[in-house]
Amino acid sequence: MTAAKDIDVLISEVGPRDGLQSVAATMPTALKREWISALAAAGLREIEVGSFVPPKLLPQMADAADVVAHALALPGLFVTALTPNLRGAEAAFAAGVHKVTLPVSVSEPHSLANVRKSHVQMIQEVQAVVNLRNARYPGVQIEAGLSTAFGCSIQGVVPEDDVIRLALVMAECGVDEVGLSDTAGVANPRQIRSLFPRLRAEIGADKAGSAHLHNTYGQGLANVVAALEVGVTTFDASQGGIGGCPYAPGATGNIVTEDIVFLLESMGLRTGIDLDRLMAAREVLIRGLPGEPLYGYLPEAGLPKCFSYAGRKA
Amino acid sequence: MTAAKDIDVLISEVGPRDGLQSVAATMPTALKREWISALAAAGLREIEVGSFVPPKLLPQMADAADVVAHALALPGLFVTALTPNLRGAEAAFAAGVHKVTLPVSVSEPHSLANVRKSHVQMIQEVQAVVNLRNARYPGVQIEAGLSTAFGCSIQGVVPEDDVIRLALVMAECGVDEVGLSDTAGVANPRQIRSLFPRLRAEIGADKAGSAHLHNTYGQGLANVVAALEVGVTTFDASQGGIGGCPYAPGATGNIVTEDIVFLLESMGLRTGIDLDRLMAAREVLIRGLPGEPLYGYLPEAGLPKCFSYAGRKA
Repeated sequence: MTAAKDIDVLISEVGPRDGLQSVAATMPTALKREWISALAAAGLREIEVGSFVPPKLLPQMADAADVVAHALALPGLFVTALTPNLRGAEAAFAAGVHKVTLPVSVSEPHSLANVRKSHVQMIQEVQAVVNLRNARYPGVQIEAGLSTAFGCSIQGVVPEDDVIRLALVMAECGVDEVGLSDTAGVANPRQIRSLFPRLRAEIGADKAGSAHLHNTYGQGLANVVAALEVGVTTFDASQGGIGGCPYAPGATGNIVTEDIVFLLESMGLRTGIDLDRLMAAREVLIRGLPGEPLYGYLPEAGLPKCFSYAGRKA
Repeated sequence: MTAAKDIDVLISEVGPRDGLQSVAATMPTALKREWISALAAAGLREIEVGSFVPPKLLPQMADAADVVAHALALPGLFVTALTPNLRGAEAAFAAGVHKVTLPVSVSEPHSLANVRKSHVQMIQEVQAVVNLRNARYPGVQIEAGLSTAFGCSIQGVVPEDDVIRLALVMAECGVDEVGLSDTAGVANPRQIRSLFPRLRAEIGADKAGSAHLHNTYGQGLANVVAALEVGVTTFDASQGGIGGCPYAPGATGNIVTEDIVFLLESMGLRTGIDLDRLMAAREVLIRGLPGEPLYGYLPEAGLPKCFSYAGRKA
């Protein structure tokens, strides 16, 4: 989904998927529902609510179809899910999601570690998902999220040309959007300024998807500033910064929804999100994951006296 | 000091002053010396080594003259100190510092809380310091650091015009540089992009000083990216992110030296700082302030496989 007319930047909340699948504890389904409702009530318009993966691998996501059903009942919410393969995509389509995101690693060693597939195998899987969608679920969107697009903790440097080449293959497969993920949190603003415009030029602006940035090196919001400059208007973020990747050593934490909303609104960019209500949603997350460390500066410091929402008077 | 030819950005380390004066514990003089030596060995070329203030108010800084003497013996190090008044400046001049920084709050309520002086009183103090320097210490530089330049936790919004007006008064007083401080950590990239160029246009590029940014809201490095765009080349930072302001409630932590160096070098900007040696200096800080919480993402995550210093091959 892209930003609607009444907002400048779309925040796509990935906590219920990226966050909850990265922690050892399993949040009870009722609390997942309550959290997603609270996030939607805070103004989040797009939420990645779960992963469709074998429950044996990720028991935290076993209730994905139930959670999708709840999210679909929330008015106006764009409901997305992640899945690494055809089988999961079929289940996600059947559950009624609006969009499926497929993680496709630019680094082949990361692909083998993360989804146990070579590039060739993963491309075949994406093609199969697109074929299924075209045949039976024509209204559902498909995004390829290019993992390790800015560097990989296994491979090391990831050349830009590799990213663009894979993005073009994804477009040929027929996905609707290609997003770029900084899985290891190693991206820098110079890379961001270079790669997103190139992506747009190569596959078309309508197909260039979201920026999925991690905060492992504390560079998340610095990269957001650079991405805004080059026209990126959709950012993934997770409440409390939960998330990571078990197969990218050291990768911990998405950019924090609370902090990016504070950044954007302070800069005069409308997100449609209310920070007090977002704090209320955080309380649900805390109840749902007792003892789990959460991140974020705004929740610690509280809204400053000089803050005002974009488009409103101080 | 501005960046020399072999570096692109100058990091001015303020931990031994801003950091050590903000914690309750007092670091022993011998460890301060060892820490400053380790910082210089890591490539830091400018260090604010202490405050000249009444020891009754800040006992952590009682050994400032001793510490300055040690720092002056380190080859090539530019040694600076902070002081809020003429008496402190006289002591700093006598100790032999290369530069004195005077904190001048744009927010008058903050000025009254921080240094117990109105704007008029503080301007008189700055003029007296400049007069003393001109008469007896002509080689020493003076910087006015404009506190609360981006917003104040007491006053709230701080208008840009107030910042510029005070900057012009400081220039008329005869200070060499005027820097801008985000004391409360509330600055956003839009403000940064607006205020630094205006400062330069109004007082002259040669007089526009450093950016002193706090990370209270996690926006520090995002603001650095914006500041780099508009030509700022000197940034204050503190190892471990220690620092704050006792009279700016909620203000905790400077931008972390480790993380800004990682950001800049990753972006291809040379700092002259070696990150392994910087980690060694952090060990001295940890020994000197046992139990004190330190900040920073790089120290947690470690240098990633894809990292390379600016101007060197990966």
